[in-house]
Amino acid sequence: MTTRLQTLKIRRVAIDTFHENVVYLHRECPLYRSEGFQALAKVSVQVPDAASEPLQAVLNVVGDGAIIAVDEIGLSEQAFEQLGVSEGTPVVIEHAARAASLAAVYRKIAGERLSADELDAIAQDIAANRYSKIELTAFLVSCTQGGLDRDEVLDLTRAMVRTGRRLDWGEGVVVDKHCIGGIPGNRTSMIVVPIVAAHGMLFPKTSSRAITSPAGTADTMEVLARVDLDPAGLHRLVRRHRGCIVWGGTSRLAPVDEVLISVERPLSMDSPGQMVASILSKKVAAGSTHLLIDIPVGPSAKVRDTVKALALRKLFEYVGDRLGLHVQVVLTDGTQPIGRGIGPLLEARDVMRVLENDPAAPRDLREKSLQLAGRILEYDPDMRGGAGFDIARDILDSGRALEKMNAIIDAQGREEDPPELGRLQQAVAAPHAGVITAIDNLKLARIARLAGAPLDKGAGVDLHVKCGDEVAQGDALYTVYAAFHADFRFALDAVEEGTGYTIGRAGARR
Amino acid sequence: MTTRLQTLKIRRVAIDTFHENVVYLHRECPLYRSEGFQALAKVSVQVPDAASEPLQAVLNVVGDGAIIAVDEIGLSEQAFEQLGVSEGTPVVIEHAARAASLAAVYRKIAGERLSADELDAIAQDIAANRYSKIELTAFLVSCTQGGLDRDEVLDLTRAMVRTGRRLDWGEGVVVDKHCIGGIPGNRTSMIVVPIVAAHGMLFPKTSSRAITSPAGTADTMEVLARVDLDPAGLHRLVRRHRGCIVWGGTSRLAPVDEVLISVERPLSMDSPGQMVASILSKKVAAGSTHLLIDIPVGPSAKVRDTVKALALRKLFEYVGDRLGLHVQVVLTDGTQPIGRGIGPLLEARDVMRVLENDPAAPRDLREKSLQLAGRILEYDPDMRGGAGFDIARDILDSGRALEKMNAIIDAQGREEDPPELGRLQQAVAAPHAGVITAIDNLKLARIARLAGAPLDKGAGVDLHVKCGDEVAQGDALYTVYAAFHADFRFALDAVEEGTGYTIGRAGARR
Repeated sequence: MTTRLQTLKIRRVAIDTFHENVVYLHRECPLYRSEGFQALAKVSVQVPDAASEPLQAVLNVVGDGAIIAVDEIGLSEQAFEQLGVSEGTPVVIEHAARAASLAAVYRKIAGERLSADELDAIAQDIAANRYSKIELTAFLVSCTQGGLDRDEVLDLTRAMVRTGRRLDWGEGVVVDKHCIGGIPGNRTSMIVVPIVAAHGMLFPKTSSRAITSPAGTADTMEVLARVDLDPAGLHRLVRRHRGCIVWGGTSRLAPVDEVLISVERPLSMDSPGQMVASILSKKVAAGSTHLLIDIPVGPSAKVRDTVKALALRKLFEYVGDRLGLHVQVVLTDGTQPIGRGIGPLLEARDVMRVLENDPAAPRDLREKSLQLAGRILEYDPDMRGGAGFDIARDILDSGRALEKMNAIIDAQGREEDPPELGRLQQAVAAPHAGVITAIDNLKLARIARLAGAPLDKGAGVDLHVKCGDEVAQGDALYTVYAAFHADFRFALDAVEEGTGYTIGRAGARR
Repeated sequence: MTTRLQTLKIRRVAIDTFHENVVYLHRECPLYRSEGFQALAKVSVQVPDAASEPLQAVLNVVGDGAIIAVDEIGLSEQAFEQLGVSEGTPVVIEHAARAASLAAVYRKIAGERLSADELDAIAQDIAANRYSKIELTAFLVSCTQGGLDRDEVLDLTRAMVRTGRRLDWGEGVVVDKHCIGGIPGNRTSMIVVPIVAAHGMLFPKTSSRAITSPAGTADTMEVLARVDLDPAGLHRLVRRHRGCIVWGGTSRLAPVDEVLISVERPLSMDSPGQMVASILSKKVAAGSTHLLIDIPVGPSAKVRDTVKALALRKLFEYVGDRLGLHVQVVLTDGTQPIGRGIGPLLEARDVMRVLENDPAAPRDLREKSLQLAGRILEYDPDMRGGAGFDIARDILDSGRALEKMNAIIDAQGREEDPPELGRLQQAVAAPHAGVITAIDNLKLARIARLAGAPLDKGAGVDLHVKCGDEVAQGDALYTVYAAFHADFRFALDAVEEGTGYTIGRAGARR
């Protein structure tokens, strides 16, 4: 494509650039000057005569020889890792053409629909880190605002599956479940997996980390065990124990999704089309055959009313059917948080209490988990329709679920040094007596995030009362936990603006 | 808002981060660890007990003590300049709250319309560099795709004016002109300004550099003279010579626009609403009272048909009227490039040939410039309607326009070491005989950009034939000029995919 230039020596620049390849050239570098490279331009870096794919990266210009010498090219952590050669290796750099698939992103910004081939090309370029942060954002925002029709979602899902590894368990029934989120607490997967695996059904659960919530299943499980297993280890583990609870990120099952999340996270953004594609692509890649999707509905849930919930259900069903995935969607109560803890450590505590049949276990978390587990157990061809719930309860009450959970924890690698609850604690008191009539999921999630969750595992919120409970003035509604002063202050500032609780006059019931 | 932390010493990190404030903390920095700062999080940097605004910046994590020590905080070039204190100064850092105006950006992404206050808040946060590249992109894309209604455009324009300086010339008639672009060559401003200024009307022309084109007026004028004048110098110059041709960027007349361009450029994006707000805010800030806007219309122009052109005209008129700016919009022929040269140096050559009444001057550039100058001259209350064109021609033919141009060039600072035409040159031949029936503006602009324009002033394309001209097989259609091999190859690769010329059979006429 372009003329070859003289070489530069690779230098690793220990700056973490988060899924964006950045290379650094010194302002006085003869190549930078003579070839007219421009800052922020895309450049292509290649080891001469090597078969390897050239590295596409954004160019930053440096004026300090201590960071990069004039005969060197600096590679950010991520770029260095991707090129995969040692420091000092001579490389050639060229002007890189823009990723061809960007033309499709502009068409989407212009409001047009994208073809399967275009979405394939976009997914491949993103997986190869050919998109800058700016370009990733343009793609995400255009899909969020313009929306993706159901065939675009299907095509994007297929494209995301193609760009990653895909597992095949060689069994007729491989089950999975997923909640679209938005409800604090609600850590049912960590209870449903051991129940169903104890029954003997194959349940390889891969989860992502929280994007906009105070805790994802992966963040919560990480309190108890390692979640970043390599594919080979994961496979052995699941064959032996029939289940796992791991992070999907490191398994390269959905590399595109992991890159997109690097922009979604700072933007706190996820759209319906992106959500369905992200969820179903991970499940298909993980080799699932039967999938139960939990859509909580409530005034402060991600899905506010049943009309939207049904539209989303149809979208899941439409894409799932065409991917050969047996998808079942259940609408659940999303009017308030599930369980008591919000934040990885506190949610892990609730989960273990349920599995241990501890009297202090949150009843709503236990009940919902049994309902979901029951539905999944009925994917077993030999199980009589309607028998699932009772069998799930037997497995839980008998302690077999706890036994299975401990086996899975040990197999994944039990956390020897579990995190501690945040040292900074403050109880939030009821301003007046009455009955709790509403709890704002978004507000409580926000308080828990400001307190440091999910990055600080011991941070979060512990609810002492739920909807329907009576409180006297001054009773503790919940306690805020944080590890760091700045976070603690942010969380308490948010509480001062409003506790997130609505307290009706005594005797009132919703 | 948050608790104060112990201090870190400021260190300048000579990395150019382009309108994005970036700070660097060492992975082992005690503050980074103890306060739980997170990579890519927004932090606020302040000099203790200083009155100055805290600096908002994105945090990057560094693992190399040579770049940043554990007791230091690194500031990128742009952040260091903005905070404006010397290296070693102790500062405190805090978790920064997200820019409040981002909530409005999410509402726009959700397809809602924004209020004047919301657009004000966005403009202020952008001007203060509180938006990361990702956040800027989200704003731009959401406005491009969702569109801005005419009142939003008006409010955004006002907001952009408020965030910058505003000039007042203390005269009743301060004229200006602007072309929305899309037509290669077409450097009429550099001819219209000296004609009108020679007549004695005040014409302080500020232009931006090219965003998606191979040359802007500022890029082209820079071939002849300095364009980055400080406001005081600019004022003296215009008072004395009645006109100037400078870059608007350094005058802080529209700081928001300059920041937005740092993302628009790599994305090659500009939308109608953003365009009108960007143009009119600059003109109002520059103190203009009468503005002539040139909208070229043609199959490969920015505006393809008169329906779109009229809609755009109405938008300019609606916003202009409410800003007290007398706006006149003319639709011009945009079917092919104006003049012969494409690229700063070649376009400057055409301009000077017209001013020098050189027989080799492109007739279309001369004709269009006289038409526009005539319209502007008629803003003079003492001028009879319809007399403008003849007077403009007299001023040009008499050499008074050239005299004025030279005075302006000397006043701005004549370029003593003018750039040279690209060493690498190749003529592109007609594949067969016939008559030129069409020239693709986009294609020719793209070839000139790939050749290195506008960043390499001597790069570009020189057209030898225009629509209506007859050519024999092998005749040169145009010559490509480049300074650097990589660029040259890119440009010639593009030519191989198509010359951009349509050649009809001999005798054919459009």
